Amino acid sequence: MNNKDIKNIPENVISRLPKYYRYLQSIIAHKEKITSSELSKYVGVSSSLLRHDLHYFGRFGNKGTGYDVKLLYNEICNTLKLNKTYNAVIIGAGSLGSAICRYYSTRNYSIEIKKIFDINPKIIGVKINNIEIQDIDFLQEYLDENPIDIGIICIPEKVSYNICSILTQSGVKALWNFSSSDVNSSDNCVIKNENLIDSLLTLTYRINNE
Amino acid sequence: MNNKDIKNIPENVISRLPKYYRYLQSIIAHKEKITSSELSKYVGVSSSLLRHDLHYFGRFGNKGTGYDVKLLYNEICNTLKLNKTYNAVIIGAGSLGSAICRYYSTRNYSIEIKKIFDINPKIIGVKINNIEIQDIDFLQEYLDENPIDIGIICIPEKVSYNICSILTQSGVKALWNFSSSDVNSSDNCVIKNENLIDSLLTLTYRINNE
Repeated sequence: MNNKDIKNIPENVISRLPKYYRYLQSIIAHKEKITSSELSKYVGVSSSLLRHDLHYFGRFGNKGTGYDVKLLYNEICNTLKLNKTYNAVIIGAGSLGSAICRYYSTRNYSIEIKKIFDINPKIIGVKINNIEIQDIDFLQEYLDENPIDIGIICIPEKVSYNICSILTQSGVKALWNFSSSDVNSSDNCVIKNENLIDSLLTLTYRINNE
Repeated sequence: MNNKDIKNIPENVISRLPKYYRYLQSIIAHKEKITSSELSKYVGVSSSLLRHDLHYFGRFGNKGTGYDVKLLYNEICNTLKLNKTYNAVIIGAGSLGSAICRYYSTRNYSIEIKKIFDINPKIIGVKINNIEIQDIDFLQEYLDENPIDIGIICIPEKVSYNICSILTQSGVKALWNFSSSDVNSSDNCVIKNENLIDSLLTLTYRINNE
């Protein structure tokens, strides 16, 4: 599949690909084929939705024999551009920053956490899974010397604006923002605002309407 | 707006309502009217998308004078069913569970964290913002005596399945699941799988395609 085709995959299909990717990664070493009903069961989508999503990737199997696990995995990997490593820094070593650091530094998902920055002198130099907490005052210097793809923002909203500016102006390609203040879109940086409140508030809606 | 109308609001509109809700809540005490361009700027959506979303809520203002903040806030509050309190428990007092506990226990968003449960004897009895960490062995007993609406799952996947079963069988209405294993849908419980890996993996896609 070439780049033009990838751009034509709808956003809601893209949003489900990581589920397929994670499951295929977990079975690739010991399974050659998987049927759509097996895969759909494990990833928690209907068989018809799964088949609809995977038709964007061409033919990977015949009815009855199932999908070729390796081919399908490689196509999804290529679409999500996970066949290279992305360098990331976490800003904020509080509970959430530490949780994200622990999570990613023990998993093999093309994301490498290089440093975690904080303002609290008591924790500077401490390591979380071998990743050192560094003084936020050295962030600009660090970014000048090290190409970073993704900034993960785990600090309060009152300080996040300045930090996001430093990151975007230093060539960081994406911000994954957990501060409670949304970062507005930027021309040269992809922004994902992950406001945990919003997620919980749509859950209260669904409790009453499903 | 009656319940039938609420059910007709598309899911992608619902997903943006918490943003509007949060911003309106922050200004309601000192602002009576807001124009669509002001509101759209603060919540980071285009004016036309904002007007499209809010047209589901009827007319709250005239061109030039803007929306009536209080009326619009109340309608969104009513749609998301945030005019009552939801009792929640967090399962797992590690970094992520602690972060979520700190976040919600200091904010006024209709969600009340009642307890946080963990398996580690060293932290049982410790309080996070006045919310006590309790032994997971008492979870069933606690649920039998206290009506809980939402279970927030912050434990590893290998133990999450059993805990989710206890919660759903005890009448918990929604699970907000952060364990790395998705919980499949259940007839009497709303499930939101919040796999942080998935979110980051769609970000790598967007870095390369936007």
